[in-house]
Amino acid sequence: MIQTILDHRSIRKYSDKKVNKQILDEILLAGTKASTTGNMQVYSIIVSEHKKIKEQLWAAHFKQDMVKQAPLVLTFCADFNRFNKWCNYRNAKPAYDNFLSFYTATIDALLAAQNVAIAAESHGLGICYLGTTTYMADKIVEILNIPNNVVPVTSLVIGYPDENPKLTDRLPLDAVVHYEKYTDYDEQKINKLYQTKEQLQETKELIKENGTENLAQIFTDKRYTKKDNVLFSQNFLNLIKKQGFMNLE
Amino acid sequence: MIQTILDHRSIRKYSDKKVNKQILDEILLAGTKASTTGNMQVYSIIVSEHKKIKEQLWAAHFKQDMVKQAPLVLTFCADFNRFNKWCNYRNAKPAYDNFLSFYTATIDALLAAQNVAIAAESHGLGICYLGTTTYMADKIVEILNIPNNVVPVTSLVIGYPDENPKLTDRLPLDAVVHYEKYTDYDEQKINKLYQTKEQLQETKELIKENGTENLAQIFTDKRYTKKDNVLFSQNFLNLIKKQGFMNLE
Repeated sequence: MIQTILDHRSIRKYSDKKVNKQILDEILLAGTKASTTGNMQVYSIIVSEHKKIKEQLWAAHFKQDMVKQAPLVLTFCADFNRFNKWCNYRNAKPAYDNFLSFYTATIDALLAAQNVAIAAESHGLGICYLGTTTYMADKIVEILNIPNNVVPVTSLVIGYPDENPKLTDRLPLDAVVHYEKYTDYDEQKINKLYQTKEQLQETKELIKENGTENLAQIFTDKRYTKKDNVLFSQNFLNLIKKQGFMNLE
Repeated sequence: MIQTILDHRSIRKYSDKKVNKQILDEILLAGTKASTTGNMQVYSIIVSEHKKIKEQLWAAHFKQDMVKQAPLVLTFCADFNRFNKWCNYRNAKPAYDNFLSFYTATIDALLAAQNVAIAAESHGLGICYLGTTTYMADKIVEILNIPNNVVPVTSLVIGYPDENPKLTDRLPLDAVVHYEKYTDYDEQKINKLYQTKEQLQETKELIKENGTENLAQIFTDKRYTKKDNVLFSQNFLNLIKKQGFMNLE
């Protein structure tokens, strides 16, 4: 069980083999067993299998091939639409049109997503999260007919692996864990925590490919740039507002 | 493995038994194996065990007894502080002072949290998420000395269970799953999906205790009210800004 978690690696190449309905239902059921705020279950999972829809999603997700190739694309949404409708039909007045409710629903959606990911992997399936979901959330809303009070939060592609990548390196445990209170980092600590990562052969190759001085500059100058971050921030905040989650009165 | 997920129930009463260091390290390690955006690991986990700190956290978390009682309180934070420091020490200019970066780090923190939760449960430990983390995030920042570019996202209490509650009911799978695209809900569908939940004996007792007409009104009028949601939304948005994540230029 823990072994499945420890063995996780993202899979970006998939075989043609379909995921059968019984396995799909079991991993979706696992998703619904995650903790959820006040047992409200304020999330939805949209399972897309049809070629045509996957092609539209592929275009939205920066044309990453795995979106077309994997048999399943699951879009996890923060969803107060169902809950609000239930309240309205019951003479109860929902006040979930605010940022806290959006964030609460985000938490629900992500805990469900990680349950689905682990359940899938325990069946021998491969998964990969798509960070592009938030970048392109407005486009995904259009493609998947997503109504008001619902915002896409993350996506998983799922299928049988057609590659066997090695484990991704991680910072040592004491890089991310603090005891009792937060202990801030000084230069010496940062150097120590990043030393192994910076000395990996693959890091050296990446730096060469990217023509930067070091690994950090690949992130700041190539992968996650100011220009993109500002644009995507504006778009995503606009979408959260458009979907009805920014009423602060 | 899937069975651990399917058997999840939140535990709110804990025995005195401590969690040994080896098990704690293993479940924390499981947290670090979760997917993380671009392998940036932009989250932190603060492990609080000392009585004095747990008492301060207990006060912040609406005085829920389990926060004092459980041996471990883990606070999961969206954290760009470590990553930004690394960039700055490497002559790389980080531009992660925006909402998208905060949200990206939120995703990292929550996937790690759910890995920790499942790993803990697979060791026979009980867990409970604390939704109060976002409501009281400004207070938790003070208690745990949390610096700029870090925001608490959720918390887990962890320990050996001193209760054996039954599984919490969930809506049927087709309440939260959509195929291909989002299918909106009409009154008939809502009635069908909520029927079982509304007819539970415990629902009837809750309605009696709360003096409401129905279950939905318990949420809107008692548990998650407009007044609280608006206040907590304002506080949380202010904190996100204060911690340095709302630069939109």
